[in-house]
Amino acid sequence: MHRTVVHLNDADPTKIQAVLQNVTNLYTALGPDLQVELVAHGPGIAVATEPVGELLPGLLEAGLQVRVCQNTLTARGLTPDRIHPQATVVPSGMAHLVIRQSEGWSYLHP
Amino acid sequence: MHRTVVHLNDADPTKIQAVLQNVTNLYTALGPDLQVELVAHGPGIAVATEPVGELLPGLLEAGLQVRVCQNTLTARGLTPDRIHPQATVVPSGMAHLVIRQSEGWSYLHP
Amino acid sequence: MHRTVVHLNDADPTKIQAVLQNVTNLYTALGPDLQVELVAHGPGIAVATEPVGELLPGLLEAGLQVRVCQNTLTARGLTPDRIHPQATVVPSGMAHLVIRQSEGWSYLHP
Repeated sequence: MHRTVVHLNDADPTKIQAVLQNVTNLYTALGPDLQVELVAHGPGIAVATEPVGELLPGLLEAGLQVRVCQNTLTARGLTPDRIHPQATVVPSGMAHLVIRQSEGWSYLHP
Repeated sequence: MHRTVVHLNDADPTKIQAVLQNVTNLYTALGPDLQVELVAHGPGIAVATEPVGELLPGLLEAGLQVRVCQNTLTARGLTPDRIHPQATVVPSGMAHLVIRQSEGWSYLHP
Repeated sequence: MHRTVVHLNDADPTKIQAVLQNVTNLYTALGPDLQVELVAHGPGIAVATEPVGELLPGLLEAGLQVRVCQNTLTARGLTPDRIHPQATVVPSGMAHLVIRQSEGWSYLHP
């Protein structure tokens, strides 16, 4: 089993599309033995608050977990109902990235 | 205890502010059980050579260590007295990031 | 022995030069006890398809391995003979970065 966090803190739609394509390739390469969390904070929460194209539904079906930073939501005055229904909130995106690595997960920031 | 290095190689003041805010959130989330080194090289040494706003003093008080790359100082003809008095110099920022990870520290590049 | 992957997904020649300089500094600091793989995918494969200046030959001689993503080559309709003769192809750059970390390698994305 491979486990990796993918760090996203960019709101640029082209960048978000590229990251989702990267994660798609990761699932294609490593198959069902893969667990991925896309950790979005700062401008990167756009992946869960804006339409981001056609790749996300397939990724969610493949098992991708999208984690959105509560600190960012608070700083922007957003409530959790403003994010994608399949995304979940973590208290701090940065802390989540540290915690997962301490649990042995890999880290990618494409 | 969580330990993490934070990689900074960008001189843009807005980016540096965002990174310092990210580290602030990290301390808020993980509290005193956290050790952070901000490793600055290339253009990122601006965090230790230029005024970077109000977040740095509080972070230094919280225990943040700022490590500045000697290779970068040498390449720019800067002497260590040109950096923030609480920052310290490491021979190579890149090598320091590798060494810390081999010691079990997490890695973040926001 | 230190082992690290260096993630490259940027085609900007100035950025590629900076990354190659970073890797050069890494070899200078950690000497022969260092193993580095530069993992290029997406726009980053420019390091293996375009002229990138004078640092690459010395790095290859020092032992640097350049790994190019097959997914990227396929997406761009490129055959492996279009890449640098000393670069090698991996099925997925992203997956390679995860696999190496699971084998204990450090990760850097300058």
